[in-house]
Amino acid sequence: MNEERLPVFQDVLRAYQCIYKQVHRTPVLSSEAINSMTGATIQFKCENFQKVGAFKFRGASHAVLSLKDHELKKGVITHSSGNHAAALALAARMKGIPAYIVMPENSPQIKKDAVAGYGAHIIFCPPGLEFREQYTQELIKETGASFIHPYDDFKIIAGQGTAAFEFLNDAAEFDTLIVPVGGGGLLSGSLLSAKAWDSSIQVIAAEPIGADDAWKSFYSGRWHPSENPNTIADGLLTSLGKLNFRIITSMLDEVMRVPDEVIVQAMQLFWERMKIVVEPSGAIGLAAVLANPDYFRGKRVGVIISGGNLPFK
Amino acid sequence: MNEERLPVFQDVLRAYQCIYKQVHRTPVLSSEAINSMTGATIQFKCENFQKVGAFKFRGASHAVLSLKDHELKKGVITHSSGNHAAALALAARMKGIPAYIVMPENSPQIKKDAVAGYGAHIIFCPPGLEFREQYTQELIKETGASFIHPYDDFKIIAGQGTAAFEFLNDAAEFDTLIVPVGGGGLLSGSLLSAKAWDSSIQVIAAEPIGADDAWKSFYSGRWHPSENPNTIADGLLTSLGKLNFRIITSMLDEVMRVPDEVIVQAMQLFWERMKIVVEPSGAIGLAAVLANPDYFRGKRVGVIISGGNLPFK
Repeated sequence: MNEERLPVFQDVLRAYQCIYKQVHRTPVLSSEAINSMTGATIQFKCENFQKVGAFKFRGASHAVLSLKDHELKKGVITHSSGNHAAALALAARMKGIPAYIVMPENSPQIKKDAVAGYGAHIIFCPPGLEFREQYTQELIKETGASFIHPYDDFKIIAGQGTAAFEFLNDAAEFDTLIVPVGGGGLLSGSLLSAKAWDSSIQVIAAEPIGADDAWKSFYSGRWHPSENPNTIADGLLTSLGKLNFRIITSMLDEVMRVPDEVIVQAMQLFWERMKIVVEPSGAIGLAAVLANPDYFRGKRVGVIISGGNLPFK
Repeated sequence: MNEERLPVFQDVLRAYQCIYKQVHRTPVLSSEAINSMTGATIQFKCENFQKVGAFKFRGASHAVLSLKDHELKKGVITHSSGNHAAALALAARMKGIPAYIVMPENSPQIKKDAVAGYGAHIIFCPPGLEFREQYTQELIKETGASFIHPYDDFKIIAGQGTAAFEFLNDAAEFDTLIVPVGGGGLLSGSLLSAKAWDSSIQVIAAEPIGADDAWKSFYSGRWHPSENPNTIADGLLTSLGKLNFRIITSMLDEVMRVPDEVIVQAMQLFWERMKIVVEPSGAIGLAAVLANPDYFRGKRVGVIISGGNLPFK
């Protein structure tokens, strides 16, 4: 079974062959103003333009399209109130199968609307991880749906790696690739792509100071949970997945921690200079450059913008 | 002299040859979500991604690059606090000549900063058109700089027409082109391009209900000033220029008036569905479609997004 080994670059390639017809090949943009401000030559892979507004649609599509016929009928299930929920809902709808999303009843209305808009069955639970897991377990028993974890999953990791794969295909060469890290799905997939493409590309994870479990885990070599995370980057609150941690430990070059106020500066630069909407988690790569100007000056840097789901006004 | 006749399509072509190396060829984007919501097939020409964040950089570049050597030395001057000021400042800096911008002292700080950031000399005047004109006249006497009107100008009109020219080159065919109208620089230039490209393309001007002088002027056949305009679309407050009015009267198909609340809906759609930042004036083309759903259903529509200079947060 695939799931007994770690995913490798060939799995990203297979994922790409599986999903490329239904994902956007998002553009690579740059800004003269931001380059002259930072002294670096930065290219941005704009997954904020991906379907559902985030890279999560890649992994979710791969997970859904990898299901076997008897699994497809019963649908998919996850517990999430964020981009993964919307992504799974859309991927399921495009395949014509049911999606069940377990969501805390106190989730923001905009997130409920997004998931409902993609036609998923929403099951509200009381706030708290134990309720989410309990409701999910019960629903799996009831429906037989396949549980799709948002990041700690072989197919998800391989799917998320397709963003960096496209980026490397479309961009001029770069020395360093910066990737946001929360659960580690995008980061571990990007590592598979970047290191296979050119092992000399340095890969840096960007993490909020207020949710620095990846930093602790990576530099101690021991998995640390995310405890009382506090950051504006609400996509990066979760602990590293176990599969993700194994890939990250063996392949990552560095973790940089970034204060929330620099994340906001980066969002403002995207807004004012590039006229694009980027959510806090998606702006953290540029924020890492802004927070470490000497480190990046003169370098050719690739930055993955992970998503753009920011409420209007 | 050029200025004694009306500009024609050949003048747009010449303008394009003059400026194409220094303007961005902005992308043409579309959104499946917006198409399925409106029933139209809409393509957007994204001048919010133009240098200085608006189409104004096209006309300003053309005006500056058309100056003769003895004029260049003395620089350029305008009175404006908006996108034209920033555009002229940048075009002058790129040519290495001085730009003098007369601006009301109560202009928003963000606009002062933008113009100052492009290296222009800012001269503050008391609020009121008479002061702006008086200060400008004095400064012209003092410096000998060439006055560049924001829209009622042959070179400006030809320059602004290059946006529609690129649009028609890059987009699939469309039946209707929607262009915002304020002073009429973008609209009259677009008319020259669209009608020369394919005389069957219908061109519609979109105007805020609260600043409907173009509507009054076009349908009465007599120029009306903009009186006490009141709209969120601060780029569309001005009266039609005289040159612009002549072109518009003879070539335009229709003016559609749009309420401010629909402009805000359009901004929200750009934000949520396309993750792009569009200023109110720039969103009015999509707003015209939203406000007239039956009219546009089933049509192939080109919409010019004129700019994206919206303050952050």
